[in-house]
Amino acid sequence: MPHEPDARSGAPRDGGRPKKAPRRTAERILEVTLELFNRFGEPNVSTTLISAEMKISPGNLYYHYPAKDQLINGLADRYERTLAEILDGAEGVENVEDAWLLLHLLFELIWTYRFLYRDLNDLLSKNRRLETHFQAVLQRKSRAMAALLAGLARGGAARLTREAAAPMATAMVVVLTYWLSYEYVRDPRHALEPENSAAALGRGAYHVLALLLPLLDEASRAHLQHLAAAYLPAGETGR
Amino acid sequence: MPHEPDARSGAPRDGGRPKKAPRRTAERILEVTLELFNRFGEPNVSTTLISAEMKISPGNLYYHYPAKDQLINGLADRYERTLAEILDGAEGVENVEDAWLLLHLLFELIWTYRFLYRDLNDLLSKNRRLETHFQAVLQRKSRAMAALLAGLARGGAARLTREAAAPMATAMVVVLTYWLSYEYVRDPRHALEPENSAAALGRGAYHVLALLLPLLDEASRAHLQHLAAAYLPAGETGR
Repeated sequence: MPHEPDARSGAPRDGGRPKKAPRRTAERILEVTLELFNRFGEPNVSTTLISAEMKISPGNLYYHYPAKDQLINGLADRYERTLAEILDGAEGVENVEDAWLLLHLLFELIWTYRFLYRDLNDLLSKNRRLETHFQAVLQRKSRAMAALLAGLARGGAARLTREAAAPMATAMVVVLTYWLSYEYVRDPRHALEPENSAAALGRGAYHVLALLLPLLDEASRAHLQHLAAAYLPAGETGR
Repeated sequence: MPHEPDARSGAPRDGGRPKKAPRRTAERILEVTLELFNRFGEPNVSTTLISAEMKISPGNLYYHYPAKDQLINGLADRYERTLAEILDGAEGVENVEDAWLLLHLLFELIWTYRFLYRDLNDLLSKNRRLETHFQAVLQRKSRAMAALLAGLARGGAARLTREAAAPMATAMVVVLTYWLSYEYVRDPRHALEPENSAAALGRGAYHVLALLLPLLDEASRAHLQHLAAAYLPAGETGR
């Protein structure tokens, strides 16, 4: 296997530009790891495979990430940061179009980090940090869905009783979190192939918002069906 | 390790009572396997552990189940048979109380076979038969939820537009299928301990039916909240 020279070798300790090299390597390691985790599942990817794919020595990988858990945590941190940014947008939702956009961003993020969702229970049972962080992730998602519902009600798009709001937000989080798993079980050999991902993600966004169909006003309901039409088989909304 | 004599040894080939012995052993193997799968997760249970727990020789286990997949398939068959019986009941649902009972039976079944749900993606990727059977399971669940919705509408408990029925049935299947996973992520160290299972299953049944809150008439809504009250923290329905 070709062995690239260590990016740090020969870099002066106090130089401006060369100092960035290790960070670039660390970043690239995370990117390659993410791709491998997504393709093969985290349990099936060893650090040896990652260093081979990176064409760096195991020692160099070890220098940046002494344990596989640190790779997982590094990716989970990135996921959480982007998630927080997207969820912050829930405060500004006023209509179905805003909600649709937000759900799309969320599903794209889930797709990017799908390894986290594919083996979630297994990952949580092995990694204490991820375990606590994911509890916070669910709470943050719940608060955001509650804000989204409140925004739609404030904007006049949905009628919402206090009684129905909390379980609705919970159900939205469950469908959001497990939609890709559901797609996978429904069609394990095709649903999550990259060429089918756009359709799968669109169906996910639709099914989260379809929970609100009985609450939406006539115009919002029609608009949601129109937005979703591109992702659903003709004449069918419930696939 | 104590080694019980093979239950078949000495049994006449054509005797009435002794002929049952192998079947009894096969049954008991499935029961012990189910308990171990549920406790430790299927990937962490070897056939060696099963034979040790059963106090039978690996050869005897092999006689009944030559491969671990046959144990998984044997359990999945039992699960499917009971599931089909419960789902048949969806045709007779007329009110919230019927629906609540049906959901409870479903969640108890999911609890009994929770290993299937815990590592579902992993199991499906390794077992072709389970892969195809679970697709049929999801379809059967979807049809049953559609029948349940139609029954509530026919019984006058819920208003239901054709447009909302299909995505609603789909969402019910997603929440039904992944509720225990959601409970697990929310509180990995406690949610799925046996002493907390009744509350977790009750919350699941409630959250599947809470999807219908906006569709239910006033009396049915109040009745659902009343049924669910025992499982939810005081004054809270959306935990």
